[in-house]
Amino acid sequence: MQQPIFPPRKIVIAAHPRLAEARSEAVRVVEALNALGHPAEMAAHLHDEALKTALAAGEFDLMLALGGDGTMLRAGLLCAPYGVPVLGINLGHFGFLMEVQQDTWQERLPRLLSWDFWLEQRMLLKVCQWRDEKCLGNWQVLNEVVVCRGQYVRPLLLTAMVDGYLLAQYMADGLIAATPTGSTAYALAVGGPILPPEARTLLIIPIAPHLSINRGVVLPEGAKVTITTQSSHQAVLSADGQPPIVVEEGDEVRVEAAPSPALFVRFQDPGYFYRNLARYMEQNPWINPQA
Amino acid sequence: MQQPIFPPRKIVIAAHPRLAEARSEAVRVVEALNALGHPAEMAAHLHDEALKTALAAGEFDLMLALGGDGTMLRAGLLCAPYGVPVLGINLGHFGFLMEVQQDTWQERLPRLLSWDFWLEQRMLLKVCQWRDEKCLGNWQVLNEVVVCRGQYVRPLLLTAMVDGYLLAQYMADGLIAATPTGSTAYALAVGGPILPPEARTLLIIPIAPHLSINRGVVLPEGAKVTITTQSSHQAVLSADGQPPIVVEEGDEVRVEAAPSPALFVRFQDPGYFYRNLARYMEQNPWINPQA
Amino acid sequence: MQQPIFPPRKIVIAAHPRLAEARSEAVRVVEALNALGHPAEMAAHLHDEALKTALAAGEFDLMLALGGDGTMLRAGLLCAPYGVPVLGINLGHFGFLMEVQQDTWQERLPRLLSWDFWLEQRMLLKVCQWRDEKCLGNWQVLNEVVVCRGQYVRPLLLTAMVDGYLLAQYMADGLIAATPTGSTAYALAVGGPILPPEARTLLIIPIAPHLSINRGVVLPEGAKVTITTQSSHQAVLSADGQPPIVVEEGDEVRVEAAPSPALFVRFQDPGYFYRNLARYMEQNPWINPQA
Amino acid sequence: MQQPIFPPRKIVIAAHPRLAEARSEAVRVVEALNALGHPAEMAAHLHDEALKTALAAGEFDLMLALGGDGTMLRAGLLCAPYGVPVLGINLGHFGFLMEVQQDTWQERLPRLLSWDFWLEQRMLLKVCQWRDEKCLGNWQVLNEVVVCRGQYVRPLLLTAMVDGYLLAQYMADGLIAATPTGSTAYALAVGGPILPPEARTLLIIPIAPHLSINRGVVLPEGAKVTITTQSSHQAVLSADGQPPIVVEEGDEVRVEAAPSPALFVRFQDPGYFYRNLARYMEQNPWINPQA
Repeated sequence: MQQPIFPPRKIVIAAHPRLAEARSEAVRVVEALNALGHPAEMAAHLHDEALKTALAAGEFDLMLALGGDGTMLRAGLLCAPYGVPVLGINLGHFGFLMEVQQDTWQERLPRLLSWDFWLEQRMLLKVCQWRDEKCLGNWQVLNEVVVCRGQYVRPLLLTAMVDGYLLAQYMADGLIAATPTGSTAYALAVGGPILPPEARTLLIIPIAPHLSINRGVVLPEGAKVTITTQSSHQAVLSADGQPPIVVEEGDEVRVEAAPSPALFVRFQDPGYFYRNLARYMEQNPWINPQA
Repeated sequence: MQQPIFPPRKIVIAAHPRLAEARSEAVRVVEALNALGHPAEMAAHLHDEALKTALAAGEFDLMLALGGDGTMLRAGLLCAPYGVPVLGINLGHFGFLMEVQQDTWQERLPRLLSWDFWLEQRMLLKVCQWRDEKCLGNWQVLNEVVVCRGQYVRPLLLTAMVDGYLLAQYMADGLIAATPTGSTAYALAVGGPILPPEARTLLIIPIAPHLSINRGVVLPEGAKVTITTQSSHQAVLSADGQPPIVVEEGDEVRVEAAPSPALFVRFQDPGYFYRNLARYMEQNPWINPQA
Repeated sequence: MQQPIFPPRKIVIAAHPRLAEARSEAVRVVEALNALGHPAEMAAHLHDEALKTALAAGEFDLMLALGGDGTMLRAGLLCAPYGVPVLGINLGHFGFLMEVQQDTWQERLPRLLSWDFWLEQRMLLKVCQWRDEKCLGNWQVLNEVVVCRGQYVRPLLLTAMVDGYLLAQYMADGLIAATPTGSTAYALAVGGPILPPEARTLLIIPIAPHLSINRGVVLPEGAKVTITTQSSHQAVLSADGQPPIVVEEGDEVRVEAAPSPALFVRFQDPGYFYRNLARYMEQNPWINPQA
Repeated sequence: MQQPIFPPRKIVIAAHPRLAEARSEAVRVVEALNALGHPAEMAAHLHDEALKTALAAGEFDLMLALGGDGTMLRAGLLCAPYGVPVLGINLGHFGFLMEVQQDTWQERLPRLLSWDFWLEQRMLLKVCQWRDEKCLGNWQVLNEVVVCRGQYVRPLLLTAMVDGYLLAQYMADGLIAATPTGSTAYALAVGGPILPPEARTLLIIPIAPHLSINRGVVLPEGAKVTITTQSSHQAVLSADGQPPIVVEEGDEVRVEAAPSPALFVRFQDPGYFYRNLARYMEQNPWINPQA
């Protein structure tokens, strides 16, 4: 993994593509950084090839991402291979990944520019779809990859191997391989456990399993997972919620930890993650209807 | 609901369409009934229009269905409107709906022909997809109807109304409306409760809900449920696992108890359902790994 | 079941015993009723024998209960055998059973006194502990009865029979038999479904089962359930959270619907229950962390 | 952690204390080892102080434990501090921890004595109950420690801190802190995930939580967890299912990874754990009742 560079020479600002507000706020961030004598520029958008090329060329030492968790997810994936940290500025509802709010980013700039923060390392997964010993597609995910039913509303037979050993067979709507970050996304909706952001583990959990074991299995970082499927109807693969890719019988979806983690700038202490969780629990007063 | 006729004048035998074994066993059943002096004939298959017409015309007083739970499901749906009871003869693995096994049907014929059994009444649901005050499609289901994501692997916003009142909103992969029979099918896979076969209740339960309430709601027989959906991607409807039908925003999927139940012939006492459940629990010795 | 009497001749006011505020608010309620020319008096407390005697003698036609769900629970149990309706006035946090708030009871008095409301019927369970063909103890419960481990933190072997048939065996911390009202109490905490208040069903669900089936079973109103237990350590029974009673091996805990339901005064439409549920779901914005 | 010694000089045989069969089989094991010229002796029982002293003095290099998972659990806890590996010989039902069966131990002796196996390291937790800055009691556990309700069947308010940060508050029957080994014991019964045997993580999961978050949290090996409780009734602590110890308000139950793991002798490849899991899933044919 490449090392973050201090002090950051040039900063790039990326905004949620369809939020006009994100764009105008981003302009204000660029101006504020420039006013502090710091080189900063706007990225066209997060899927811009020129941005990727510039990151690969080492032109930016830090990214500021404005939007919600989806923006942060894409920014984290984009910057991870180049060791570039990302600071998330939240413009929307509660965001699990964001660090500062729209009305507080300005007061954080001095700490940011003096590199007075810590870097949270969030493991990514790399995913490869193999057919006939060829890799048909490659993805990196920050939340999860899912192999699941397509449009037909019927379960699939799914097989998961770990390090060459059979982990389990599932008759289910699908199978999720999630990062710790993804443990509070889709995996949580199907009953999965919570893994702290910096955990170095991999979570395997089925969607709607038919009386096979329905619990998540938490594997160590080094685990190599292979998912195959068998069905009379179509199976698909989706990486971090992206459009589905058809998975045929005989295809192998191979999943393992990616070499470089996403790096998120954190000013808060490491307990922030639990406080977020606690916030949600406290919001729900329905704890003891018997009392 | 029409009343079953005793003694059954003419019996129709229906077999799983793709099991050669089912077909040849069905021939043996017809021969055995004829040998006992009882009129019986083979149905072409369960989707045969002529069979439906004959049932509607009152030509058959009893159906024998050979196959597995899928065969029984189709036979039950087909015969329900005409008050014709169905006896399930199991040719496969364990079947929750079947009553006799391949090697025991012969010894049950005397009890069958002397009408020495009880009729289990299994509630059906009728489902209607409404758009612009027109009913686009009608289904009856013995297990469940599902409104859920299509091929895109992203949750939908689903709203359930009961008798004109808001029941709940879900951000989920889908929403199941199940009969008691369906409580051991898809609904069980998403964490639902078990409803005995003759219960007169309706179960609403989400698939993979995102921190909205994930519990099933068990409604009384008279409840009228309306499901609507909102999403940037496609939603579909599936009745008893049949091919998906597109559901658009603004469509209403209306669900309520059907007027006539499916009638299943039972020789066993009513505890058979719990014994089946117990059988599965006993098969799993892993009850107390601490001991 | 006895019929409620209209117009109510005499009203009794019962307050949470340890809330000074409940007591003083109760005095204001009595005064307000008297000012309207309506006979009303304070009950000493809900466990007062004189109150029970007066109810049995038909001296009161309506009870007003001030406190939280616990107060309402005791009031409902007390009044059910005599067909006396209860109106709950909420003095605390959110209460699932309460109907009016501390600051709104006054404006509801005209509707109350003109009997302009509906009566919600909530099924009770009657519970009996049998040993050597003697009934050792009798309870009526509005939430649930639990047979469970005592102080030793080890699972019990529990057997549930329904109408003389084996329902299931569980190796578990305990087994809950709940009313629909109880479906949002202890049973909800162990994964149970939600049953609307007026459902006439009985819910059986285990606490922390060891790989036996962990789903609730929803039985029809007429079901007679018998629970027995086997263990090297002590089992106990608790009725609506009351102090534990020792259950020995061989004891039978018999549970069935009680003859008279609790009657709760409702001004709101029947959708109020779902709105309460929806309120909790809406309070939790963490519905789609992926978006 | 002390290093296992090869070749093992002296072997101690420990048997389940109340199984006559275990005792007689243990005699046969001692005889077989002696016949192979290998010093071996019977332990009085696993709670024998002399055995502990002998282990501490380095008199034994290997333990053979005959019985079930409970025997293996006690043997593993006893030997862990001294780096002495344990081979489990299964005399009962399926055992998750055992390695060889009653009818196969003899053929494994050559591999055992030539040290042809691998050592599985299973993390233990050390638990301490603090009151007024004094440690009242100390335990090591291989499965879990539980802080939970005593005999009163009512939830407790439980608070979990991790590394000085608030993890969560629960209104629940109890809170489990489990090892990976314990993930298939009590924690599994309350909905927890599965952690492979050699995982170096700690699982926190509530028992019957009232609408607070009910998911397990999987913490890294270095986490220091503190559990406190608040209740009007008694709370207790139980270490690996041992008799309950009273926990008072203000007490702190501190949990962290123990310095030395239990060492289990394994001849099978590391996939054995998943095969055990798969075995249970295969035993349950009820995977797709819709088909």
